[in-house]
Amino acid sequence: MKSENKTTEDIIRAWLPEEKGLQKTVIEAMNYSVLAGGKRIRPTLMREAYRLFGGEEEVIEPFMAAMEMIHTYSLVHDDLPAMDNDTLRRGKPTTWSKYGEDMGILAGDSLLTFAFETAAKGFSLSAYPERTGRAIAVLAEKAGIYGMAGGQVVDVEKTGHPVNAEELDFIYRLKTGALLEASLMIGAILAGAGEEAILSMEKIGRNAGLAFQIRDDILDVISTEEELGKPIGSDARNEKTTYVTLFGMEAALAETSRLTAEAIAELDKMPGDTGFFRDFLKKLENRTK
Amino acid sequence: MKSENKTTEDIIRAWLPEEKGLQKTVIEAMNYSVLAGGKRIRPTLMREAYRLFGGEEEVIEPFMAAMEMIHTYSLVHDDLPAMDNDTLRRGKPTTWSKYGEDMGILAGDSLLTFAFETAAKGFSLSAYPERTGRAIAVLAEKAGIYGMAGGQVVDVEKTGHPVNAEELDFIYRLKTGALLEASLMIGAILAGAGEEAILSMEKIGRNAGLAFQIRDDILDVISTEEELGKPIGSDARNEKTTYVTLFGMEAALAETSRLTAEAIAELDKMPGDTGFFRDFLKKLENRTK
Repeated sequence: MKSENKTTEDIIRAWLPEEKGLQKTVIEAMNYSVLAGGKRIRPTLMREAYRLFGGEEEVIEPFMAAMEMIHTYSLVHDDLPAMDNDTLRRGKPTTWSKYGEDMGILAGDSLLTFAFETAAKGFSLSAYPERTGRAIAVLAEKAGIYGMAGGQVVDVEKTGHPVNAEELDFIYRLKTGALLEASLMIGAILAGAGEEAILSMEKIGRNAGLAFQIRDDILDVISTEEELGKPIGSDARNEKTTYVTLFGMEAALAETSRLTAEAIAELDKMPGDTGFFRDFLKKLENRTK
Repeated sequence: MKSENKTTEDIIRAWLPEEKGLQKTVIEAMNYSVLAGGKRIRPTLMREAYRLFGGEEEVIEPFMAAMEMIHTYSLVHDDLPAMDNDTLRRGKPTTWSKYGEDMGILAGDSLLTFAFETAAKGFSLSAYPERTGRAIAVLAEKAGIYGMAGGQVVDVEKTGHPVNAEELDFIYRLKTGALLEASLMIGAILAGAGEEAILSMEKIGRNAGLAFQIRDDILDVISTEEELGKPIGSDARNEKTTYVTLFGMEAALAETSRLTAEAIAELDKMPGDTGFFRDFLKKLENRTK
């Protein structure tokens, strides 16, 4: 199939490991976790960024799949009994509750490792090994202690404790923002974009991650259970520090607008059609669920 | 310090993350785990292989550290309550028992991710991005479901169940052998060795891993508690399938000799001084603890 005719879902599926061999159970658990649903936001953003900067190689495909594997591993480990102890995700049993706690740990580990194994296959699909190498570096950095995992650590440590503004910013920026930053940056890097454009993509990702999190806090107050599909007011009941509890509703709404406007100003510097990203940012700012 | 004057330990320490920032706890847990001891066999083998093929760049250093981080992550997760539930390793509290189960999971995840972040720094330390890229691919492949993690999965699934010869070979080859293979291969790859030499190094690693495991089975029968530093006869008491229970002591001794001789025959094809590897293989074959 020609690359442009493949959906993001097609691409992710094509790079999953085959369910065979003596280690079949863990591969089933890995694929179950990835295929349990999700909006595929990160690989879609990556692909759009790649297109924006004129990328035409197949190298983007293993990176799209790798990004979704890393996002999935983080959910699989978050759900573990020693973490959030969740038995359901998107209406289906979580990986550990279906395959056992040991397989939950191993499936997460294996998804994380397989993400890098998959990304490294990009070297044979690109004429630019430096770009592929840098994309792997960004993938690791934004997934690790200076990225998503760092945010997760502080979030875990602060559960049940008061959080100050600096800590809240750190958690929001890293836990959600880091992989959005990486997705946009990797698309740009693999397409050969210039340094300034790569930095702009990082900023757009950071702002989108923050706006997403603050909007979550807002919706927990102003939405309805019907609209949101889950109980509202849970942050207040759990005495959770959010952007709204720290700074108030008005400031929260102003901040999501500011973050969105700032991201759109970065898009104004870009060549080509940035309509996809504008729509994405506007939807994030105004989403009701 | 000039590269040749640094010990393996110096190199590993130099690439560990700094203990600062809001995510400091997990960084402390990562460094605690890596610095809890260990013989540094894998990075030492990697460095010797690099030297054997004339490697002179600094790129080997982040890969040595990355290999030890991956080995360490596997121990940290193996020790978790849902896995082996070990509270002590080398006489010290295991990571989870010191930092909590959630931090144990996150420290393992972070070490695994940081290993790739560290290895990717190799791109700026080498004039050969293709070599660095291939070394990252080998690192991921040998750590993942077709390597160490695959062996670990089957080992976990078979605990308390009978194991046949094919399964035992799979577990032994992957659980220990895969990272030894990767260490030797990465040293050769980064130094620019030819394909045949890289395959030879892989074979030496595989044989060394198998010989190491079978020797473990032998020592559990013929050693003494004083010599081994732990109770002997535990395999028989736990009705564990080992190479000795499957094939008998004579066959086990013959197989370690055969594996060692085969590995040494590969060394005979190599240029330069292979004394280090010969000594290593002979010590593995005849070790008493």
